[in-house]
Amino acid sequence: MTTALAEAPVAGIDHPFVQALVRILRAEDSYGHWEKLSDAVVLKDFIVTKEQRREMPIIEDPDPDVLWRVEKFYSAVALAIELKTKRMASPMMKMSHEGFGRVILTTGRLVVLAKSLRDVHRFGFETFEKLGTAGQKFVDEAEKLINEFPQVADY
Amino acid sequence: MTTALAEAPVAGIDHPFVQALVRILRAEDSYGHWEKLSDAVVLKDFIVTKEQRREMPIIEDPDPDVLWRVEKFYSAVALAIELKTKRMASPMMKMSHEGFGRVILTTGRLVVLAKSLRDVHRFGFETFEKLGTAGQKFVDEAEKLINEFPQVADY
Repeated sequence: MTTALAEAPVAGIDHPFVQALVRILRAEDSYGHWEKLSDAVVLKDFIVTKEQRREMPIIEDPDPDVLWRVEKFYSAVALAIELKTKRMASPMMKMSHEGFGRVILTTGRLVVLAKSLRDVHRFGFETFEKLGTAGQKFVDEAEKLINEFPQVADY
Repeated sequence: MTTALAEAPVAGIDHPFVQALVRILRAEDSYGHWEKLSDAVVLKDFIVTKEQRREMPIIEDPDPDVLWRVEKFYSAVALAIELKTKRMASPMMKMSHEGFGRVILTTGRLVVLAKSLRDVHRFGFETFEKLGTAGQKFVDEAEKLINEFPQVADY
């Protein structure tokens, strides 16, 4: 299974945002466990198909793994913002154990992303393309805000 | 002890910021346990004298009560900002169990306060005057920023 996935060409995996996420995840691989795994395998738990989603309960406490993935997703948004705007973005996430919460990204004194989180136990994307598009949308919005208020972002 | 404190006139207790903190705390008193207590008694754990501080260990994990007080302090800053600027400020605090962390207050898309927290187990103020001055400093800085960047605060 792992080998098959590693060898198949995977649509969307080379999206710049998806690659930022890969960088964030591989940076945590201190012991090199993932070195031989393809990007698609490293990211596999970010993909939740329609079928998988249907099988998930509507309400459930998120497990630590999914909270970790949500955190990494927004860290990747922060990294992609930095790569694009040359300005550091700091994420801050606060979650209740019930899967409700809030995440914000700040650049200087500017809030470049503010989002309420809910149903976090079902966090995931149907395809790598959709993962890339979702992350890129936040990056583009942040870039627009920074261009609009550069003196606040540099404060 | 409680009665004595309740009856003594306490310098600084009528400071606008101290009164904002009293409002925040009394708002949590759903069962009216504190109704008959004076403001000074309700706030007594925010006061840490030099002597008390000397007796505290340099490094220690903060207990839930002190984390709660830190949170209420910044909620009071948010309330005082709202009273002064007529704009809502939302606090967001993230703490490690070791007493390190970060708190930010945002108004619209503007970060009106950003502060690293450390040694939280020793959180407290020598007197009510000093508590008032410390809170007011944050409120004034936030007001200045809002006046400088109103379009970001209203975004």
